[in-house]
Amino acid sequence: MERIIIDMDEVIADPMGDMVAWYEEKHGLKVDYDQMKEGSWVRGFPEQHRQLVLERLYSEGFFRNLSVMDDAQDVLKEMNKRYEIFIVSAAVEFPNSLKDKHDWLLEHFPFFTWRQLVLCGDKRMIHGDYMIDDHVRNLVHFPGKKYLYTAFHNREIEGYDRIHHWREAASIFLK
Amino acid sequence: MERIIIDMDEVIADPMGDMVAWYEEKHGLKVDYDQMKEGSWVRGFPEQHRQLVLERLYSEGFFRNLSVMDDAQDVLKEMNKRYEIFIVSAAVEFPNSLKDKHDWLLEHFPFFTWRQLVLCGDKRMIHGDYMIDDHVRNLVHFPGKKYLYTAFHNREIEGYDRIHHWREAASIFLK
Repeated sequence: MERIIIDMDEVIADPMGDMVAWYEEKHGLKVDYDQMKEGSWVRGFPEQHRQLVLERLYSEGFFRNLSVMDDAQDVLKEMNKRYEIFIVSAAVEFPNSLKDKHDWLLEHFPFFTWRQLVLCGDKRMIHGDYMIDDHVRNLVHFPGKKYLYTAFHNREIEGYDRIHHWREAASIFLK
Repeated sequence: MERIIIDMDEVIADPMGDMVAWYEEKHGLKVDYDQMKEGSWVRGFPEQHRQLVLERLYSEGFFRNLSVMDDAQDVLKEMNKRYEIFIVSAAVEFPNSLKDKHDWLLEHFPFFTWRQLVLCGDKRMIHGDYMIDDHVRNLVHFPGKKYLYTAFHNREIEGYDRIHHWREAASIFLK
């Protein structure tokens, strides 16, 4: 069975969407999506409020209540029957998120088991046939076929095959 | 730099030793080390108390207070200068342990960073040049050089090069 390594944040979970909605509601200010293009959606928030954003990102519970990316559940349920799938999240930077991410994954993707979750700091030792990730820093060491999952912060990056949404992943992996 | 994948429990941390000390103190009964040889130290505890042992194993805080294996700190501090080291623990089965393991590692091994910790359910996608682990099920998929770290539960297993203690690891990796 071929192995697919799939990222969590900005790929199957939507922390940026949650943070933007919370911020615009709380502060009545708009986020600047153009500023995200340097590789982090945190840069889209006005500088005077970035510390607040980071504190919320590091707090217990933030990753427990995120929205699921459109169509990820249906498509991954089918992919899980045909491939060996691991959900790999560079989450150790956020130690309060570790149990939240476990609980979130098994709630929203009940066809996965705990054996399929990997929480790490760096992905360079993770091997597989395919990797789907929104960060070039994770894809760059990967020995298999790489797909950049499109997010606001990576819009301007060239040179990678992309997956723009989970229906497109289905057209690649479930054809 | 060559990469070494190092397990946590029974290799750098001592959950079995902690549980045995707690059990013998609490119940005044001895653990049967011969029963561990089937691959799990939990089998060393009398059957009527195994549920208690498992409950303690799954509880928050258990992995936060474990003893460090003899000489692991000094030897790994030196190895960390010469190798790319990742501490990889199949801990996702115990979601309450995830933050505890992060905090424990960075307290007792302050020369490691969060980037070097991996918490997973299965290790088959982890690649490196060397793996040190007390479980054959983790070593069996590994493509590099494998070392079985000796524990009571694996005493009878043959066919693997072994590391019996961290001074022996030093003689292999720091010569």
